[in-house]
Amino acid sequence: MGYIVRYIYFLSDQTGVTVETLGHSLITQFDYHDFQQVTLPFIDSEDKAKEAVSKINSENRDSSEKPIIFSTLVQDELREIIKTVNGLHLDIFDVFIGPLEKELKQKSVRKSGLAHGMSDTKNYMKRIEATNFALSNDDGSILKHYDMADIILIGVSRSGKTPTCLYLAMQYGIYAANFPLTEFELEDGLIPKSLKQHHKKLFGLTIAPERLKQIRKERRSLGSYSSIKQISFEIRESERMFEKNNINYVDTTELSIEEISGKILEKTGIERRFRP
Amino acid sequence: MGYIVRYIYFLSDQTGVTVETLGHSLITQFDYHDFQQVTLPFIDSEDKAKEAVSKINSENRDSSEKPIIFSTLVQDELREIIKTVNGLHLDIFDVFIGPLEKELKQKSVRKSGLAHGMSDTKNYMKRIEATNFALSNDDGSILKHYDMADIILIGVSRSGKTPTCLYLAMQYGIYAANFPLTEFELEDGLIPKSLKQHHKKLFGLTIAPERLKQIRKERRSLGSYSSIKQISFEIRESERMFEKNNINYVDTTELSIEEISGKILEKTGIERRFRP
Repeated sequence: MGYIVRYIYFLSDQTGVTVETLGHSLITQFDYHDFQQVTLPFIDSEDKAKEAVSKINSENRDSSEKPIIFSTLVQDELREIIKTVNGLHLDIFDVFIGPLEKELKQKSVRKSGLAHGMSDTKNYMKRIEATNFALSNDDGSILKHYDMADIILIGVSRSGKTPTCLYLAMQYGIYAANFPLTEFELEDGLIPKSLKQHHKKLFGLTIAPERLKQIRKERRSLGSYSSIKQISFEIRESERMFEKNNINYVDTTELSIEEISGKILEKTGIERRFRP
Repeated sequence: MGYIVRYIYFLSDQTGVTVETLGHSLITQFDYHDFQQVTLPFIDSEDKAKEAVSKINSENRDSSEKPIIFSTLVQDELREIIKTVNGLHLDIFDVFIGPLEKELKQKSVRKSGLAHGMSDTKNYMKRIEATNFALSNDDGSILKHYDMADIILIGVSRSGKTPTCLYLAMQYGIYAANFPLTEFELEDGLIPKSLKQHHKKLFGLTIAPERLKQIRKERRSLGSYSSIKQISFEIRESERMFEKNNINYVDTTELSIEEISGKILEKTGIERRFRP
């Protein structure tokens, strides 16, 4: 018996980011481990659409399992071509644009590239500025502009501060700084001196010791840095400091960067400066 | 006559990133400038769903325009509650999960949080490591690990190198370094010395002078840094260098970070190390 693979295709007239996100959230609802995912971006002409159909048909010719094709194709003509594919084709414009046109009482423009376009220069600038802010205020660096920060993330090394700051900047335009809690900082249970005047902006990250050990080991496997004793101490003391000083915090152990960022927005009520 | 606003809601049992992306790509197809966008994340209980319905109904009570509600709610019970809202409700699970169950011949698990979950520790690590790589190989910094890089972006100051490297890392797990082309580097039309042995990994970014002027002015409005003469020189010379040395490049003027990254993947054929 051969091993059966089910192909999943993500087709887009743009980068494919939207259709991947959409398709991924749907297929993760199935207990099926043999999905082979392929993204075909920039399908923006009839030729490219035909090419995609040929590719999909030929890749699945000998399979007993039909491929599943997710697409976000704005133009009717391109969707019509993709529809001829031998597989299950699901397109979000196909399904949603009709009800929306009816409700908004107008025809949609059916032009691709509008969602990620840079029509709004101001938004682009906000995003870049927020990213630069995160970069220059990373890891308690010398160049600190905490007055400008919307939020300052604090936590022990490798608790997820840097990627979260970057994500907050790029996705929401939020000015996020971060400051590492080292052993030295944690000795007295007090808020580090340079952060005291920004108490209200502080937000803590914590993580399960076992998980942190795993993460730190990837970086440096020797020494106390990744010893469970040291890690447990740092985490216990940082959580105690958060509690003692009424600093909101979140456990990142089971969360992705998107989720950590989402929880922070929810818990603090910080307003995004940017909508993609 | 009052000013009429049309409310758009994005509801999710998770962060709302998927539903925002989806809804945004749909509403940008309409020429309608009064959309007021609101995200209601973490709707994961019947109480929260009822609360959302009340909020939406009361916010739109006096409006002649019905609100539009996009949602990605996995649980049937929560969707049923949201359906009672006074507005146009569009849910992706509602529409797509049925055909998928039929094709895959199984019931979906209807469990929220699977798409962004950290079930796959390896993927999480890849993403973090790629982000760290981008950070420590930003802007031609001293710590260079170009041997490990999948790609090295080159271009003049503010052409979009840093945010693109970060996006490539966070979205695709790609190891992206970047190196700034300064006036000094551009004098002789040659590839900078420290990049020569990595010729195949080089990828150029360019941008229209007027646009770059606008971006640089935000940073530093005085001096030659943002003078059109200086900028035109830098861009002309960098493009000449790309052409002369057969370095692939892309014009970022009209592109978002997502699109620049997508084009790079398309043009180079670099394999992503990670699927979200």
